[in-house]
Amino acid sequence: MKQAARSGCPINLTLEMLGDRWSLIVIRDLMFGNRRHYRELLKRSEEGIASNILADRLKRLEAAGLVSRRDDRSHKQKAIYSLTEGSIALVPLLAHMGGWGVRHTTASRELSVRAEILEEGGPPLWAAFMEELRHLHLGAPAPRESVFSRLQAAYEAAMAAPRE
Amino acid sequence: MKQAARSGCPINLTLEMLGDRWSLIVIRDLMFGNRRHYRELLKRSEEGIASNILADRLKRLEAAGLVSRRDDRSHKQKAIYSLTEGSIALVPLLAHMGGWGVRHTTASRELSVRAEILEEGGPPLWAAFMEELRHLHLGAPAPRESVFSRLQAAYEAAMAAPRE
Repeated sequence: MKQAARSGCPINLTLEMLGDRWSLIVIRDLMFGNRRHYRELLKRSEEGIASNILADRLKRLEAAGLVSRRDDRSHKQKAIYSLTEGSIALVPLLAHMGGWGVRHTTASRELSVRAEILEEGGPPLWAAFMEELRHLHLGAPAPRESVFSRLQAAYEAAMAAPRE
Repeated sequence: MKQAARSGCPINLTLEMLGDRWSLIVIRDLMFGNRRHYRELLKRSEEGIASNILADRLKRLEAAGLVSRRDDRSHKQKAIYSLTEGSIALVPLLAHMGGWGVRHTTASRELSVRAEILEEGGPPLWAAFMEELRHLHLGAPAPRESVFSRLQAAYEAAMAAPRE
């Protein structure tokens, strides 16, 4: 994180700031899974992230200002991780990444339903989801409608549906 | 590339397919710089990509169907690299990545002008740029207007402008 940037190109700097793919996987789990504790991020990882990689990426993301960490008042031993304005602004990028993945990779049906809803919803839905993330992560007022619940319900319905 | 995917999530599979940040840097240079030969991609790299990394990423991208390679009839010894439908479909993702980078990293002014034009243009400009990339890389008919020239002219004007 502290080494000099390889170029001033905004695409390069974005990739340098995100570090590697595990960083975006951690942001994805904070964002779409609302996994806010280290143990949840570790134990519920679909990709089986290793504990040392998770710890390192959380530190890097915190140093880059994309994740914030504070003590959880309800659990003395636990820290709670939150997204920041910077990482909440990644919603459109992740929406595009999910949409591309649905079309160009062998993504599973259950794990594609949220990506499809987000892509179809386009910029208005992304803005509503970002507003909700500001509520969940930054303490902003709750929006009237929950995009998170809608995505979650679609995901759970797909998980519960019989396999084809 | 050949190892089993860590999960069926479309975001994860996109990140797995792209491999690491150097893969997207190579796609960026093919896309926005129209650098089609190995030597150009190596020598003109803003980030100073190493020759072994460039060779490896071109091979991986070819295996993933995101880059195609053929002999250049005008240079017997040379191969020419092209984008595919799959990588041309990354235009909106790279446009969002560039836009995010302009706002959230210390991107240089000269290297930000193209990202700003692309972001402001939105989906209609991305579609026009993708049509032109299909012409440049896949032999489709030339579009009436060149987005590539417009981006390139803005970049060159920014490079020629006196530093503030």
